[in-house]
Order: sequence, then structure tokens, then C-alpha cells
Amino acid sequence: MSRGVEILPVRGMPEIAAGDRLAELVLKSLTDGGETLEGGDVVVVAQKAVSKAENRVRSLRDVEPSQRARELGAALGKDARLVELILGEARRVIRAERDVLIVETVGGWICANAGIDASNVPGTGMVTMLPVDPDESARRIRAEIAAAAGVRPAVVVADSFGRPWRLGQADVAIGCAGIAPLDDWRDRPDRDGRPLAATVVAVVDEVAAAADLGRDKDAGVPVCIVRGLERYVTAEDGPGARAQQRAAEDDLFR
Amino acid sequence: MSRGVEILPVRGMPEIAAGDRLAELVLKSLTDGGETLEGGDVVVVAQKAVSKAENRVRSLRDVEPSQRARELGAALGKDARLVELILGEARRVIRAERDVLIVETVGGWICANAGIDASNVPGTGMVTMLPVDPDESARRIRAEIAAAAGVRPAVVVADSFGRPWRLGQADVAIGCAGIAPLDDWRDRPDRDGRPLAATVVAVVDEVAAAADLGRDKDAGVPVCIVRGLERYVTAEDGPGARAQQRAAEDDLFR
Repeated sequence: MSRGVEILPVRGMPEIAAGDRLAELVLKSLTDGGETLEGGDVVVVAQKAVSKAENRVRSLRDVEPSQRARELGAALGKDARLVELILGEARRVIRAERDVLIVETVGGWICANAGIDASNVPGTGMVTMLPVDPDESARRIRAEIAAAAGVRPAVVVADSFGRPWRLGQADVAIGCAGIAPLDDWRDRPDRDGRPLAATVVAVVDEVAAAADLGRDKDAGVPVCIVRGLERYVTAEDGPGARAQQRAAEDDLFR
Repeated sequence: MSRGVEILPVRGMPEIAAGDRLAELVLKSLTDGGETLEGGDVVVVAQKAVSKAENRVRSLRDVEPSQRARELGAALGKDARLVELILGEARRVIRAERDVLIVETVGGWICANAGIDASNVPGTGMVTMLPVDPDESARRIRAEIAAAAGVRPAVVVADSFGRPWRLGQADVAIGCAGIAPLDDWRDRPDRDGRPLAATVVAVVDEVAAAADLGRDKDAGVPVCIVRGLERYVTAEDGPGARAQQRAAEDDLFR
């Protein structure tokens, strides 16, 4: 059994605050743990850490809900101020039924509550919003790692999304740099030379999901290294995770 | 950086044929590679290997399409015989538009083409169908491993599913034994003692996705071992992957 892929939690990261440089914190925690980043690594950072560093934290107490937010909040059993924040981040509402509010965000992601979330945010009534441009976040973290450490691993920003039809949430990539989000096998033959119909592997989402297995949500491990995927790591930053977004006109579920 | 999670491809597996005992083939390949299974491992087997072993391979030449299959095939640009097989595996059609046929299978999975697929199936016009009961497949493989090797790792049957809203396919679990499909954090507090709202982690889908990173689709690696997730491996076989299926009445997208 040859060497496969490793998922390594980066332990010892501090609570992230606005203005923190995540690259430096990751590198320091790695050094403290006696570990070194490799150029073929993928550094997977939880959205919440990125949002905190980018000061995408809001207090519900500062939010004045609109009439629409108050009505929708009452209908869904949600805090009207949270609904106001969600609608402010939404390009369109996909579903607003029962206690669920699924929107397409201004950044193009379809998810519950526009990715706004209160867990693991210090302070009462504090929530995180998604980074304004998670691909840009990934590119910036990558550049900072390269400047400080002399290697250019790929960087992925991961968040936990629910899914239609299946219970539970799985981590997916909402931002990336230095890794192609999709691995397109459609032009490559299978083992018997037949075309591999419709096989496009969502590599970066699988990387995000794998990384989630490496950390305990309550243990303060916002970053994992996925090692052994050198074949997917590219010199250029690439198109980012938004290349995974299915165009509305090609989508059968919105 | 403490030990994390490893994804180890099981190399040297032969082409799988009807009646093969997958457990024995996995154990032999591991032994040949100088590796030993551990009780806390998760053995992730590609659906295609399970389907071949269970003789869930069909020849399109043996299929006589119904009138409905011919009409739907013409409308979607699909082989009417393939559509006939898909409809035979379907409890209901979720979407039949453009070149896409998404159904709810008799086993309760919602996926394109009822999971029927021609890639990596030897012979012209041969396709694999999903195992009749992938949870039972996982339980059987687990029992066979335990009988032969004296350890009881968890077993997952994984398949590549497309997703609404996002391009590409990611591996998910359609069967499992010895691992809880969902890790429910809703009663546990976050680091600051606040409840983790709506956090149910789809662990077994993340395991399936992680395992897909360990194998090359054209390299004949139908099985990966995911090591380091002992905390999720259970003595009892558990409810199986079907526990992940969202009930139709709770689903907003069918």
C-alpha cells in the first residue's frame, strides 16, 4: 500500500480576530508543532476563521429589520434581524418554507441563511457573514504563505453546507487558489478505452470534506493540511471555487 | 501536528467479477502490499466494484424499451434501453429535462440515471446498476472481513453523485456498516457554550469524498482505507447510509 493522502489538523491556533493574518498564524502553529508546509500541500481554512480575520462579524443588535425581514422572520420562526442580514447578502431567495431560508448569495453560492452563522462566534448576538470574495481570500492567504514560507501550497476556504435530499451538512469549498476546483475526465478514456461520460470530479469540494474529518468542531482547529494531492496543486491561482457554480440557466433546482 | 487521518489506496485489486468475495480480495491486496487492516479503519468500496461482485451488471442488448422509455429517451437524447433500465429502478422521476434524468431510486437515493453507469464496465453496452441494498452489502463485506481477519473495520459503499447548484460530482455514501452516517452536534455546545444550531455532520459522505481523493479513477483502485477515524467506528453495524435520506415530506427540492 503506497503512500496516500494525509489530513493533518493544525493545532494550537488562537481565536481569530479582525485584522489577523491567517497565513502567519498557520505558519506559527505549524512551526510550534514541529511541522513544515510543503509546496504540494493544500491548506484548508474554515470560513469562520477567514470571516473573523476579515471582520465579517456583525452584531444582531446593530441591525434594524425591514418590514419584509420582520414578516419573513415571523413566518419562518427566525430572528428578524438575522433575516435582514440574510436578505442583504442574497441575490435571490431560493426557498423560504417552514424554518428554512435558502438563498443565492451575492457571491453566487446557494445555501441556507446566506452562510450566516452564530456558532463559535464570541459574544452574544454575534454572527459571521461569508467572506466578500472567498476566492480572493484564498489567493491572499496563499500569497502571504508564499512570502513568509517560500512555498506555495494551494489554499481552500471551506464551509459546511446542507444538501437537498440528504440529511446533514458536508464541507464544501467556497474559495480556492492554486487548485483546480474541477477535474474534468470527460476527454479521458476509462480503463477499457471508453469515454468516461459526464465524469467531472469536484476535487476541491472533496478536499474540503476530507479536511472536515481532520478537525473537531469544538476543539479550535480551523485549519487542516491535506497532503499528497500534489497532482492537483497548480502554480497559477486558477479560476477559484466560483468555477464550480452552476449557471442559473443550466440548473434544474432553482 | 499530531497524527491526523490517512487515506490509503488499496492497490493491486483484480477486475471484479460476479460472485467475487470483495472482503477476500481486499485482504489479499492489503497483505500483498505489506499492510494490515486495523479495527478502527474505514474500508471504502466503490459502488461499481460492489455491483460487479453482486452481478448487478446488465447488457443493454437484453433490454426491450417500453413506449414510455422510447419517448423519454428521444426527448432526452438517451438510449431508450438505458432509460428503460433507469425507470425500472425508479420510485419516481424528479427531473426529466434537457439531457438529464434524475430519479428517486427504489432504494431511496436521488441521483442521475438511477446510478446506472457504463464507464469501467467491461464489454460493449454493459452497465452497472446500484446494489439492491448497499447497506446490506456493507454489512456483508464487514462480516466477511471480520471472519477472515479478526478485526471489524467500518465499511462504506461510495458512489459519485452530481449535486444541484454545483458542477461536478463528489463521492457520497450509499451504504455503510459500523459507522454512524450522521454525527449530531445539536445537543453539544460550541466552544463558548452556545448550542451548535443545526449542526449535523454528514460524516459518512465526507469519508466517501475523502476516499475518492485516494484513488485514480483509471488506475483500478476501487477500494481505499480511511484511517484515523476510530471515534466514528462502532461495534454495531448501525442504521446504514439510508439514515441520511431526507424524508420526502421534509424535502423542499422534489
